[in-house]
Amino acid sequence: MSCVLCDSDGGLIVVRTEKFRVIRVVDGEEARRFPAFYRLIWNDHVAEFSDLSVADRHACMDAVAEIERVLRSLLHPTKVNLAALGNVVPHLHWHVIARFDWDSHFPAPVWAAAQRDEVPGGAAARLAQPLVAVDAAILQAISR
Amino acid sequence: MSCVLCDSDGGLIVVRTEKFRVIRVVDGEEARRFPAFYRLIWNDHVAEFSDLSVADRHACMDAVAEIERVLRSLLHPTKVNLAALGNVVPHLHWHVIARFDWDSHFPAPVWAAAQRDEVPGGAAARLAQPLVAVDAAILQAISR
Repeated sequence: MSCVLCDSDGGLIVVRTEKFRVIRVVDGEEARRFPAFYRLIWNDHVAEFSDLSVADRHACMDAVAEIERVLRSLLHPTKVNLAALGNVVPHLHWHVIARFDWDSHFPAPVWAAAQRDEVPGGAAARLAQPLVAVDAAILQAISR
Repeated sequence: MSCVLCDSDGGLIVVRTEKFRVIRVVDGEEARRFPAFYRLIWNDHVAEFSDLSVADRHACMDAVAEIERVLRSLLHPTKVNLAALGNVVPHLHWHVIARFDWDSHFPAPVWAAAQRDEVPGGAAARLAQPLVAVDAAILQAISR
């Protein structure tokens, strides 16, 4: 079976480690509506979180927490959303999404129906920092 | 500010610990469509996962992984979905949901639009085990 997360990076690479990579979603509607949308993608093809060893699970969630801390520190989101779903692509990946009370879907999940119009021209311009600064801070936090 | 997860159990109590409780969602459409829908609710009122100490984060996700393992072992779901959103109730809680390729929303997230009709009479009857057996196994796994 071919797997899109085995066959491609899955987004803009922010940092690679031996165990996982962090990407930023840069294409399509998701990136336009939720610009600070990152994913931690486990390198090995495992489907479920509980397929990881305890050490790998802890390392995975330590990195998720580091991404969350950077988003909170630089962007002051209303809330951070974390999710490992994988119904369509059953290769372990964690969504880490900065949410704002002005985004098109808040307070609904990003997968639900929109609650209001999109920010004209894309939401990235409303962020407190350029996304490249966020990317760089995540690289630094994970590499530490 | 009043908080519904400070002021109530938030569902059917499966197990309580000093740090968190696990509940099963028993009311409304969610329970009818996704009967094996559990939540780990942190006892203290913290909003974000990264508000926890590293020891608490690990304990939290160890418990989430235990719930996931029970769901996999007893119910053989197509996929398990994990999420900490909290946009509406910003008190840390993890959704742990057994998903099946026959459920009303699969492969979409439970928060998205339905993909097909609900199972007539509720989906619980299609599970491989009664939910009380799943509850008991989660109690045992978390209390170990």
